[in-house]
Amino acid sequence: MSVTAAQGFVAGGAAAGIKADGSLDLALVDAGHSVPAAAVFTSNTAAAAPVQLSRRHIADGTARAVVLTSGCANAATGAEGMAAAERVAELVADHLGCDPTEVVVCSTGPIGTRLPTDRVAEGLSRLKMSREGAADAARAIMTTDSRPKEAVARGQGYVVGGMAKGAGMIRPDMATMLAVITTDARLDSATLGRALRRAVDRSFNALDIDGCESTNDTVVLLASGMSGIRPDEEAFGTVLEKVCRDLARQMAEDAEGASRVVTIELSGASDDETALALARAIADSALVRSSFYGADPNWGRLLAAMGATRLPLDPSAVTIAYAGVVVAEGGVDAGADPDLVSEKLEDDFTVSIRVGDGPGRCELLTTDLTPDYVVFNGERS
Amino acid sequence: MSVTAAQGFVAGGAAAGIKADGSLDLALVDAGHSVPAAAVFTSNTAAAAPVQLSRRHIADGTARAVVLTSGCANAATGAEGMAAAERVAELVADHLGCDPTEVVVCSTGPIGTRLPTDRVAEGLSRLKMSREGAADAARAIMTTDSRPKEAVARGQGYVVGGMAKGAGMIRPDMATMLAVITTDARLDSATLGRALRRAVDRSFNALDIDGCESTNDTVVLLASGMSGIRPDEEAFGTVLEKVCRDLARQMAEDAEGASRVVTIELSGASDDETALALARAIADSALVRSSFYGADPNWGRLLAAMGATRLPLDPSAVTIAYAGVVVAEGGVDAGADPDLVSEKLEDDFTVSIRVGDGPGRCELLTTDLTPDYVVFNGERS
Repeated sequence: MSVTAAQGFVAGGAAAGIKADGSLDLALVDAGHSVPAAAVFTSNTAAAAPVQLSRRHIADGTARAVVLTSGCANAATGAEGMAAAERVAELVADHLGCDPTEVVVCSTGPIGTRLPTDRVAEGLSRLKMSREGAADAARAIMTTDSRPKEAVARGQGYVVGGMAKGAGMIRPDMATMLAVITTDARLDSATLGRALRRAVDRSFNALDIDGCESTNDTVVLLASGMSGIRPDEEAFGTVLEKVCRDLARQMAEDAEGASRVVTIELSGASDDETALALARAIADSALVRSSFYGADPNWGRLLAAMGATRLPLDPSAVTIAYAGVVVAEGGVDAGADPDLVSEKLEDDFTVSIRVGDGPGRCELLTTDLTPDYVVFNGERS
Repeated sequence: MSVTAAQGFVAGGAAAGIKADGSLDLALVDAGHSVPAAAVFTSNTAAAAPVQLSRRHIADGTARAVVLTSGCANAATGAEGMAAAERVAELVADHLGCDPTEVVVCSTGPIGTRLPTDRVAEGLSRLKMSREGAADAARAIMTTDSRPKEAVARGQGYVVGGMAKGAGMIRPDMATMLAVITTDARLDSATLGRALRRAVDRSFNALDIDGCESTNDTVVLLASGMSGIRPDEEAFGTVLEKVCRDLARQMAEDAEGASRVVTIELSGASDDETALALARAIADSALVRSSFYGADPNWGRLLAAMGATRLPLDPSAVTIAYAGVVVAEGGVDAGADPDLVSEKLEDDFTVSIRVGDGPGRCELLTTDLTPDYVVFNGERS
């Protein structure tokens, strides 16, 4: 009941026929009336029509419902695509008896194809909305995800729950990560917005599978207030972050073609932003991620990847450990036996990098790059 | 005779024992006395000791000789590595009877290992220097290159020739591209420097195999002046660029694990720099390069990769053609038959992207990302 675990929400999923194979492809989450809401969208300048529309609809800090379609991203579809996204909002508004501006629209699937809005209309008529419908909703947003992703965490007297799909743009054509999170905590949209931004930075934005930011990435948070509890922002943020991190971890574990989740801990940078830029350079390197696949503690590639960012970096201040074993210290080889280290890299592992004495740090999740990834993403869709 | 095709140069290659398999691993190019010279080095902040040393040695605009070792990058080796690079320059200076500051030092191979300078000393004693020695020199700088890379072009009364190794950091641990280019044109070092910078930007820097800039990348140009011809800068630049582009193309074609060279032509950007940044975003995307491998004209991934740079981009102004067939126009699908386009992508091909009406353009060489690349780079060295 993830996305309906908090009081005040119903959800459902249906097969509208957007996907050719007849599986679930339409999800709806409904709060029954407009409630405080916040969202974080992709910063890709080629943002899809639903992202552009939803940005406008949530600008007033409220939303009633979130509709999600899978099987078509409605991205790179021009004016016709924007009309289709608007049509979906209208259809949902008619179905629920509300205004289209109360509806957030999300789409995921191949870029460049047209969204069949007539099928969305049909699908809506078949939707059964209930608290139990959360399971179908979580399935209906899947593209090549191998399993639905749901998470729930409890605060003092209130609940935060959510569902998500995807892992960056790791799937063939299946752009996008989408997440809908609900809570029955009583908070205004400004507080929700701040807490969501922070939680997203520490969870979904700390997930970097292949460096590809999609055109459709969206995380929406709705707060019914029905618990009557008004938690302080920090406490709420902690619970929200827990849900977001849980969902992000599930995405990394389900990343197509990946055989290991690798956590990159980077510390000692001048600030957190620099730490993240250095860690991302590591996670974006095909060479580094190939060495993860080979269980090879090839720290020289990490150093080279960080150096190529041209950020200030003193190699002689760099210490690198794989799975707790220091392999480089002061920027030179520490004499660890690569065979012994390699044995520790057969499953998920952590690489810890210290680049100096600064306060900046970050933690980034990535995966290894595998031949399966290339084959999978090389297949025509 | 590539690197000795111009008058005034001799070269040689020897097996010094840096590489365990006993193959050639020490190359020397000698102009006989100090001549005008210029170089372009990696901008990686973790630049290797030989790069740091050579920057100083060539700062006065002259050099006599270039020594190159393969089998060890002498990178991430700290103060000891710098001492080793200095020792190599001293050994060569003793051998030739010149000052160490007249020697440019280049190294390529695994990062983090120590360069055995005693073996370099032995290798020098076995070197046979001649014009014919260019072939051995070109072989001695190879790491996992499958063949030596040499090129020659002729200007009006003068010659430009060179040798190179590598392809970015595409090889397992074998960081680095190195190139030595010589000419008998009579030019001062300032002119050489400007011409080299431009030629490198349009050749080696327009080659992006896996987005990894090595710690050791070096291109050196020596001008003996022995033809007596003083060409104008533009004419010389054209000949030099021809040699550099020839060598860069050979690198792309030899890129380990790659099955196709893909040329990305991007035009219509606000300036050349923006054009290059957008093209690089495409070449750096594992998703895009997987689709090249799959012969899939998946233009949506190109659009998403460019959008993720956050550079100004108007999707509705984007036109994309694969192998001459327009697949997207005005940012939306142009209705081309993907099967017919795919047939044209089985061998090397060009992707042409127009992003607007600006004057900025670039051409970038990359390759497809293949399962072989991952396997190759996942192997422990």
